Amino acid sequence: MTILGEMLIGARAVKGTNGPIQAINPATNEALEPVFAGGTEADVGSAAELAWKAFAGYRETAPEVRARFLEACADAIQALGDELIERAVAESGLPRARIEGERGRTMGQLRLFAQVVRAGNYLDARIDPAMPDRQPVPRADLRMRNIALGPVAVFGASNFPLAFSVAGGDTASALAAGCPVIVKAHSAHPGTSELVGRAIQKAVADCGLHEGVFSLLFGAGNGVGQALVAHPRIKAVGFTGSRAGGTALVNIAANRPEPIPVYAEMSSINPVFLMPEAMKARGDAIAEGFVGSLLMGAGQFCTNPGLVFAVEGDDLDRFLEVAGSKLSETGTQTMLTPGIHDAYNRGVDQLEGNSRVREVSRGQGSDQPNQCQAGLFVTTADDFIADESLSAEVFGSSSLVVTCKSVDDFARVAEHLEGQLTATLQLDEGDHQAARNLLPVLETKAGRILCNGYPTGVEVCHSMVHGGPYPATSDSRTTSVGSAAILRFIRPVCYQDLPQALMPDALKDANPLSIRRLVDGQDQR
Amino acid sequence: MTILGEMLIGARAVKGTNGPIQAINPATNEALEPVFAGGTEADVGSAAELAWKAFAGYRETAPEVRARFLEACADAIQALGDELIERAVAESGLPRARIEGERGRTMGQLRLFAQVVRAGNYLDARIDPAMPDRQPVPRADLRMRNIALGPVAVFGASNFPLAFSVAGGDTASALAAGCPVIVKAHSAHPGTSELVGRAIQKAVADCGLHEGVFSLLFGAGNGVGQALVAHPRIKAVGFTGSRAGGTALVNIAANRPEPIPVYAEMSSINPVFLMPEAMKARGDAIAEGFVGSLLMGAGQFCTNPGLVFAVEGDDLDRFLEVAGSKLSETGTQTMLTPGIHDAYNRGVDQLEGNSRVREVSRGQGSDQPNQCQAGLFVTTADDFIADESLSAEVFGSSSLVVTCKSVDDFARVAEHLEGQLTATLQLDEGDHQAARNLLPVLETKAGRILCNGYPTGVEVCHSMVHGGPYPATSDSRTTSVGSAAILRFIRPVCYQDLPQALMPDALKDANPLSIRRLVDGQDQR
Repeated sequence: MTILGEMLIGARAVKGTNGPIQAINPATNEALEPVFAGGTEADVGSAAELAWKAFAGYRETAPEVRARFLEACADAIQALGDELIERAVAESGLPRARIEGERGRTMGQLRLFAQVVRAGNYLDARIDPAMPDRQPVPRADLRMRNIALGPVAVFGASNFPLAFSVAGGDTASALAAGCPVIVKAHSAHPGTSELVGRAIQKAVADCGLHEGVFSLLFGAGNGVGQALVAHPRIKAVGFTGSRAGGTALVNIAANRPEPIPVYAEMSSINPVFLMPEAMKARGDAIAEGFVGSLLMGAGQFCTNPGLVFAVEGDDLDRFLEVAGSKLSETGTQTMLTPGIHDAYNRGVDQLEGNSRVREVSRGQGSDQPNQCQAGLFVTTADDFIADESLSAEVFGSSSLVVTCKSVDDFARVAEHLEGQLTATLQLDEGDHQAARNLLPVLETKAGRILCNGYPTGVEVCHSMVHGGPYPATSDSRTTSVGSAAILRFIRPVCYQDLPQALMPDALKDANPLSIRRLVDGQDQR
Repeated sequence: MTILGEMLIGARAVKGTNGPIQAINPATNEALEPVFAGGTEADVGSAAELAWKAFAGYRETAPEVRARFLEACADAIQALGDELIERAVAESGLPRARIEGERGRTMGQLRLFAQVVRAGNYLDARIDPAMPDRQPVPRADLRMRNIALGPVAVFGASNFPLAFSVAGGDTASALAAGCPVIVKAHSAHPGTSELVGRAIQKAVADCGLHEGVFSLLFGAGNGVGQALVAHPRIKAVGFTGSRAGGTALVNIAANRPEPIPVYAEMSSINPVFLMPEAMKARGDAIAEGFVGSLLMGAGQFCTNPGLVFAVEGDDLDRFLEVAGSKLSETGTQTMLTPGIHDAYNRGVDQLEGNSRVREVSRGQGSDQPNQCQAGLFVTTADDFIADESLSAEVFGSSSLVVTCKSVDDFARVAEHLEGQLTATLQLDEGDHQAARNLLPVLETKAGRILCNGYPTGVEVCHSMVHGGPYPATSDSRTTSVGSAAILRFIRPVCYQDLPQALMPDALKDANPLSIRRLVDGQDQR
């Protein structure tokens, strides 16, 4: 397959007219061929109308058909081979091993959703049989299932050019739910996007599905994305990116004649609480683990541990010494884009220039382009609470340690936090009572609570919650990673006294899909 | 129990200071004692802070404790006896039998939610056990459950003074989820509200719960409700009422520093499709059933059949004759409030004055106050599509028949409809093929699809969906009636490597709640 710089609108490949859009290798600042160009409002309209045409048939495809299509997407991505890996490395500056792992995750989550579609639990099928003899009034036959919301707009994220981009989690969960998908590609990795887009386009054709099930658009500015969210055929939006970007899309969606849900994953600083007994027992190991998590991927994760709470004293001094020393020995890593690199430097400069903040350590510098020089800083709980700017996310390998007078302070500072994707506790058995006081606060603040680990490294499984209260996401009721993400793209429909001949398979008496159903309040299969 | 004209803020009873608010018996236009008065922003703040204090403990009450509390609420409402029935009849103008039935439904849904809490399916508990030996990286122990969102603001509806008011469906589902509730009472039935509020207040005390679990506020204008939705301690809103009212609350919630979900049930005209074979076989019976549904409760239901589609011809002429004749024989019924009566008359006058509309029949008139004089009107499909005003809800016993050239027109006019709570088909076996073409459109337009019944009479059960695409509701992903309503007030939290000693009961290895859990993708109990 070759990268031609084309958008994909259904089965067609289309040259954009608004440009130029060109990827840059952040490790060298060299521009990568070919030159892409963005779409127009007419392109958005074409893709959206095609998606709508595909919707009625696609949402009612048999589970096995949809599952095989998701697996065909995974196979087609695999078949892209080294060309995909090399292009993604060049466009992202991420190491080859990371990109290979991310490809595995991308294919894995497509295959996981195939299993979810086959199992059918997400349909939440329910049957309340008729009671013709009930007094004073009979009960009708009532049945419920979830159906797909409609075409979904997905915005590719910069920091996961595969796993949260064209065929990423949002796309996989929406396709699994029965929703056609239109991806607005991230302009930082257009070549990767086109390759993966063509793989999905091929899977659509190979599976005999309507071409409108998938389209891929480019856009130089915000116009294409905004037109997509505003389009009446679009019924939901998945987004991973900045708080400003997510908020803008939420506002467009809320002000449509028919408002639609936006699942925007936006901002998180992922507090880590270092409990006293754990620090006493194994402070050095905690410091090493923490720095490892902070440096991973140049800190360019939504779950980067950007905030650490600890109790002042010898154990914390030692922790800062060990972590600071390890950090100061580390070399730089290439960041995803010059823009992200500039924003990181601005964020770190603000911390450096803040009189409430002391620098603990910086990583080594470099004269190469777009290099992330890690940073560790320290402030007090009172200063942290007094200065709102210290709660802002610095996207990259920077973290702020907040010193508390005692472990009792933890709940107070936690109450002060905005919504988070994760909250982490380093704790030993002697810390359990203190943790019992803190956990109820953390549950209201974060989507995932970890013990004795670090928040980077998000497992794709049934129990994962990658979400959380605002502004971590725009909708705390859902997750964007893991099988529960399918719940974002469905809505329930009830059928009253529908004849069996017209009944959807999920609700037929004979249960031809062999799915779990709640019959008169009891689980049956 | 006596009605004292007081708000309930936790365990206290408080006289409002902004007034007056006084109920009117719509059957006589007489004012009912006592005089109530609305709360202040300070009252909103007191109730919200109390609710927040109650939240941490209440959301983690054992399922059996919360279930018994819901049952205690039902028992306390029953214990109000005839005083409640008489007051609700006087304040609403609804017949005694209807109010008694509504009380039964109110207690029934509280008891249904007790069962839902005991069963625990809504927790969606999931466990993905650790895989310490997995290559290339081990998997952590990951578990997920749903937790309560936080304090919920509930707005009482005018048309169900018991079942969708102080202890109605929104309150029951929020309390079941583990959310404290603050009700903004509807000013049309303040006495009924106080009685029911005191019953819940008593149940809170009898069950030894934190007083902040429930509060009841009055408000003469919109100020109290708006302050409630804007308050940072409130985390979700349940509302049933007008499109303007619901939209205003949605906007307030969206513009908070932390936006919150609003479940507003707003507007629906509930199309009924009369299929040709059914009309041929039993047109008279369909006409009789339709008029019965239209007249029920003076048409003051969210699910009133306000729109009928049929194919022009002899069968339809006969239908209009039978339905019109039956309607013309019917007397008036008292409407809920003078305001609702005025709005109904304005809506009917607009239809009467519209040159695209022909009057089929009116019910008998009356010189008593606030009487609903039923109305049946007819227009063509082309006129219906051309004139947007014909899609507006007329709240009361008014319905508009839209004549189509053929059954193939049904899907075209259905595409033109806004979101609806219900869509109804009258059909026989010979209509199945036509129904197959129409059903996919109706599924995208309505929350409930009925065959050979009428949309009034909403069963409270597991399979019910009382919801639908905008503007039927502000959030099509949920229902406000039936056990699935509990899903509106929860969000998922994931626990990674949490020690068993700190694990919530729902996720402990031993499964002490004996709930259904998804373990490694498989159902277990």
